[in-house]
Amino acid sequence: MSSITAQKESFLMYNDVIQKRLEALRSAMKAEGIDYYLFVTADFHSSEYVCDHFKAREYFSGFNGSNGDLLVWKDGAALWTDGRYFLQASEQLEGTGVDLMKMGMKGVPTVEEFLEKNMLPGETLGFDGRCIPLGRGKGFEKICEKVEKKACADANNPEKSRVILCDIAEKVWTDRPELPAEKAWLLTKDNTGESREERIARVRRAMREKNADVLVISSLDDIAWLLLLRGGDIEFNPVCLSYVVVTEDSLTLYLNKTILSADVIEELTADGIEIRSYNHIYSHLERMKNTPIEEPTVMIDPKRVSFTLYKAIKTAGERVKILEDTCPIILMKACKTPEEVEFERQAHIKDGVAVTKLLYRLHQLREDPSFKAGEKKVTELEVSDILLNLRKEQKGFIDQSFAPIIATAEHGAIIHYEPDEKSNAVIKKDAFLLMDTGGQYFEGTTDITRTFVMGEPTEEMVKLFTAVLVGNLRLAAAIFPEGTTGQNLDVLARQPLWSIGADYRHGTGHGVGFLLNVHEGPQNINLKGAGGKMTESFREGMITSDEPGVYLDGDFGIRLENMMVCLETSKLKDNAGKSMAFEGKSKEYADDYGPFFGFETLTMVPFDKRSIDPAYMSAQDIRLLNEYHEKVYNTVSPFLTEEEKNWLREETAAI
Amino acid sequence: MSSITAQKESFLMYNDVIQKRLEALRSAMKAEGIDYYLFVTADFHSSEYVCDHFKAREYFSGFNGSNGDLLVWKDGAALWTDGRYFLQASEQLEGTGVDLMKMGMKGVPTVEEFLEKNMLPGETLGFDGRCIPLGRGKGFEKICEKVEKKACADANNPEKSRVILCDIAEKVWTDRPELPAEKAWLLTKDNTGESREERIARVRRAMREKNADVLVISSLDDIAWLLLLRGGDIEFNPVCLSYVVVTEDSLTLYLNKTILSADVIEELTADGIEIRSYNHIYSHLERMKNTPIEEPTVMIDPKRVSFTLYKAIKTAGERVKILEDTCPIILMKACKTPEEVEFERQAHIKDGVAVTKLLYRLHQLREDPSFKAGEKKVTELEVSDILLNLRKEQKGFIDQSFAPIIATAEHGAIIHYEPDEKSNAVIKKDAFLLMDTGGQYFEGTTDITRTFVMGEPTEEMVKLFTAVLVGNLRLAAAIFPEGTTGQNLDVLARQPLWSIGADYRHGTGHGVGFLLNVHEGPQNINLKGAGGKMTESFREGMITSDEPGVYLDGDFGIRLENMMVCLETSKLKDNAGKSMAFEGKSKEYADDYGPFFGFETLTMVPFDKRSIDPAYMSAQDIRLLNEYHEKVYNTVSPFLTEEEKNWLREETAAI
Repeated sequence: MSSITAQKESFLMYNDVIQKRLEALRSAMKAEGIDYYLFVTADFHSSEYVCDHFKAREYFSGFNGSNGDLLVWKDGAALWTDGRYFLQASEQLEGTGVDLMKMGMKGVPTVEEFLEKNMLPGETLGFDGRCIPLGRGKGFEKICEKVEKKACADANNPEKSRVILCDIAEKVWTDRPELPAEKAWLLTKDNTGESREERIARVRRAMREKNADVLVISSLDDIAWLLLLRGGDIEFNPVCLSYVVVTEDSLTLYLNKTILSADVIEELTADGIEIRSYNHIYSHLERMKNTPIEEPTVMIDPKRVSFTLYKAIKTAGERVKILEDTCPIILMKACKTPEEVEFERQAHIKDGVAVTKLLYRLHQLREDPSFKAGEKKVTELEVSDILLNLRKEQKGFIDQSFAPIIATAEHGAIIHYEPDEKSNAVIKKDAFLLMDTGGQYFEGTTDITRTFVMGEPTEEMVKLFTAVLVGNLRLAAAIFPEGTTGQNLDVLARQPLWSIGADYRHGTGHGVGFLLNVHEGPQNINLKGAGGKMTESFREGMITSDEPGVYLDGDFGIRLENMMVCLETSKLKDNAGKSMAFEGKSKEYADDYGPFFGFETLTMVPFDKRSIDPAYMSAQDIRLLNEYHEKVYNTVSPFLTEEEKNWLREETAAI
Repeated sequence: MSSITAQKESFLMYNDVIQKRLEALRSAMKAEGIDYYLFVTADFHSSEYVCDHFKAREYFSGFNGSNGDLLVWKDGAALWTDGRYFLQASEQLEGTGVDLMKMGMKGVPTVEEFLEKNMLPGETLGFDGRCIPLGRGKGFEKICEKVEKKACADANNPEKSRVILCDIAEKVWTDRPELPAEKAWLLTKDNTGESREERIARVRRAMREKNADVLVISSLDDIAWLLLLRGGDIEFNPVCLSYVVVTEDSLTLYLNKTILSADVIEELTADGIEIRSYNHIYSHLERMKNTPIEEPTVMIDPKRVSFTLYKAIKTAGERVKILEDTCPIILMKACKTPEEVEFERQAHIKDGVAVTKLLYRLHQLREDPSFKAGEKKVTELEVSDILLNLRKEQKGFIDQSFAPIIATAEHGAIIHYEPDEKSNAVIKKDAFLLMDTGGQYFEGTTDITRTFVMGEPTEEMVKLFTAVLVGNLRLAAAIFPEGTTGQNLDVLARQPLWSIGADYRHGTGHGVGFLLNVHEGPQNINLKGAGGKMTESFREGMITSDEPGVYLDGDFGIRLENMMVCLETSKLKDNAGKSMAFEGKSKEYADDYGPFFGFETLTMVPFDKRSIDPAYMSAQDIRLLNEYHEKVYNTVSPFLTEEEKNWLREETAAI
């Protein structure tokens, strides 16, 4: 029996299980008076990653991709997912009775369109409103209103189409994993340059500017930043499941108290923070009407706060005014303090040492005759493990900052490829090995991509690699005035590729947190801005990735990623150590047109010289590369063995 | 008596006249039951330039800047204008009793805010709704509603606050200039590559896509494009005052019939176009209810259609559905046909010959000992006249495409400077002369800026000139995929300036019409897009200016402007004549990531070599300049005298 058939058989057996679960679900729905029930892929905080407790969609459909909505009704079920997962979903859904809805394909309705078309007057839609942002929740309410207006609606029918908020999984999913409850810990002003008290005061100032009496914060990294609080409830993100409610003279933190040690509780309490149970947020907000403030204005971020939280605030009645606005912490958090920037430099030296050591090992491998002969076999997951161990050797390493992408040859062309037991491949010789990985250190968060050729590159590989490299270097060397956005700068990274007919279908850069999430707003580097709108302009202290790439389907992928911190030119040095402060006439101009900003590159790892051809570079590009490489050598070599150091000297020698 | 005092005295005498006019105005307002009356600076078509008939704001205030709103009420009057005009307005308003409201300054309310604060319940606001876009008009209606809701509003008062549409100037301004009525003329398919019939069919297709039964067109260049119609009603813009209403089987043109010759009428009528009087548009739209279409959907562009037109459509009642959407012609008009592009090339050769001849004359002047000695004096207006005459020598020249900017030394730093009898200055030696001018030819519209040094430039002048030049060249050399906008590309022009602390406070490029307006949408090249929103991406046939600059207040200005047409790389040649079509592997990549586009430079005039230092240029920049200059020489020299040709050979020799 071929392995594929065996796999299919096991799927089909599993899919009997799915059918039974759906049966149980439908009984529960009936008992609750729910005609349609929707599972989404989210936790209560719009987090990028969700823990197992929130994987009800997978439990009831068998589909385990990272994006999908499952809708179940009396005699049917359908799963919506995007192009990355069409193949996987159609395999995993086979025999479950769940139909696949290919998102974005012509003629395929959205969940919302499907509901509007199929729901009958009087029918109800259930979902866990804690997992749905308030905007989408309001949309579902509107759909129910429209359904009610459909022809033939019986005005005397006491049953109206409506939304029912309910976590139905709780009733059917017997062995559901608990919510995580990892120990929380605190940073101090020594780590961040800013105390808890100072941050809370800044947020209160921002509230006053918006005339907000109450601020409800639901996003975990915003809470982590505000309270100098870290935890381990979300994989890769050192945050705790929590909510915060701030007023002018109070701050309440809602979380599972068991994750706090007595010391942590004492320190938070000393700063005037009241600690309540995670679920009390709802009843607290419902009782807002009892606040002594005359007509309180409650500020919430519609992209981050859930529909159920919103409803809880609405319960407080007409007296409470809701102000939907972007959470003020997002921009504060993005602009790292000088102390955070200095720590990030240190984190990047440590990370640079670990990744450089890995590159040296890969270099040894590519030179190893038994590897060239195809006898010595190393897999993607083995490389991943080696790197993890090298990172663990660094003092202050906590965890990886996301699931490592280690992709040999054609795997590198799959932009979101992650090796697992099933896909794990042996590293191919003479092929590119693309490695996009990162670490969480006590000093900060890293994210780096290097592409390394495991032998001899072809001319095409060299040409494309050099184009990606040149894009990376030029973007990092940009000098720009206040108000410039990533939408403006992106072209600097893409131009070398565009000029040879190539491009990449992802943004060029994303914000990165300080000992927090590896993806963080509000800035980005993207031709389209943020969904067609302007993104926030660059400000001092923002840390952003610079990661152009190129992908040839079925062949290989190249991506070269450094992290950069935005600094005013007066505080900026180039990689050769020269001050970028304007002088003479330029200083006069800049007094009028500035302030001007530029980037300091944080990542300290060499680019694989074997794939670089100076013939495709300008004199300026070559200077930028050589200066970067010299800085890498000077920064990283003190932490290497003699052997590694000798190799790095060669790898970073001027071209 | 100093001339300034004399000037002031004449102002004051004139301002008695203004006061008398305002008195008469207030009587007329009282008779019409109008408490506040607003004059804006616009004609009925949101045109960029307005003819004298529409200068009521100037007539009643004495202020003649290009931007201003005048509000008059029982015992006061106020004029709003922007920063360019604060000084001029405060001088011109002195003694008139009209207060100056400095737009954008802290604490200064907008017209709307002022009205909302000051109007009392029952008071009315009058304006000529034909001069106000529908969006602003609706805003005024809302203000009246809010005013009515103010405390103390007497519910029994039959007089409600409301908007009164009325052209009050007509009653008071006795010697008001008539509307212009210049002869209209027609283009043919030979000029445009597309017939009237074909264009009308395209517009009807666009209407069907939007389910629109009726399209009302109010913008004059859109009408000119659609009907291959040209005229002379607006200075510099070859358009006729007109409206068009399109349905599936009819097209009605509203204009002053006296401007049409019998031939023109015959040709338009043969294409099924019904011609009606200019003012009949209003009654026609009011009678829309009589259309045989069941529930007609009328499409209007809210940025272009006036409040009065909108009201006329609303008069037709509930049966008529209004669809507010961007006029489909805007994008069609921007994408020139291959024939139009070819004609534009010819127009630019003619214009290039005229401007090159001027540069040669200026070169002779700068070398002239009597100019150097300060004996020979030439003024800005004289240069302007010389250039106009050189353009007139070109066959097919019709008119200038805008008021010429000829600015010596510090005048060049005033971005919107136009020399007039008062400001006209003698060309300074060793200073920059900035010349931003353009022509209307039967073959197309041109817009060019050259900055020429009238002697020996300083090191600073050379450094800045070279930076502006490099920005111009790099932007023109961009290759980019479909979907790229001017917001993405702008940075290519600014980078050389940013890197030395300089910048310019205007966009880098604007669209240009084909034998139409010199400013035309929808594309532009601007860091901020179109008011913070994404602009339309570049498409084949779009003609856009490329005009970086730098301005040192009180010292000098530099701007270098070429026009470029966007073409697919497969149809594009660089200035050396080499095809830009992708080949080999690049062709494969581009099949996946393309189509890709680039720019062909249309403008054919050398850059002043005396102010260029190759030390500030990359090898690639130098190549781009040399190739452009060689092309200029080859294209323009056949139309020059031997003497001019010899000079041009030197001026365009490789650096």
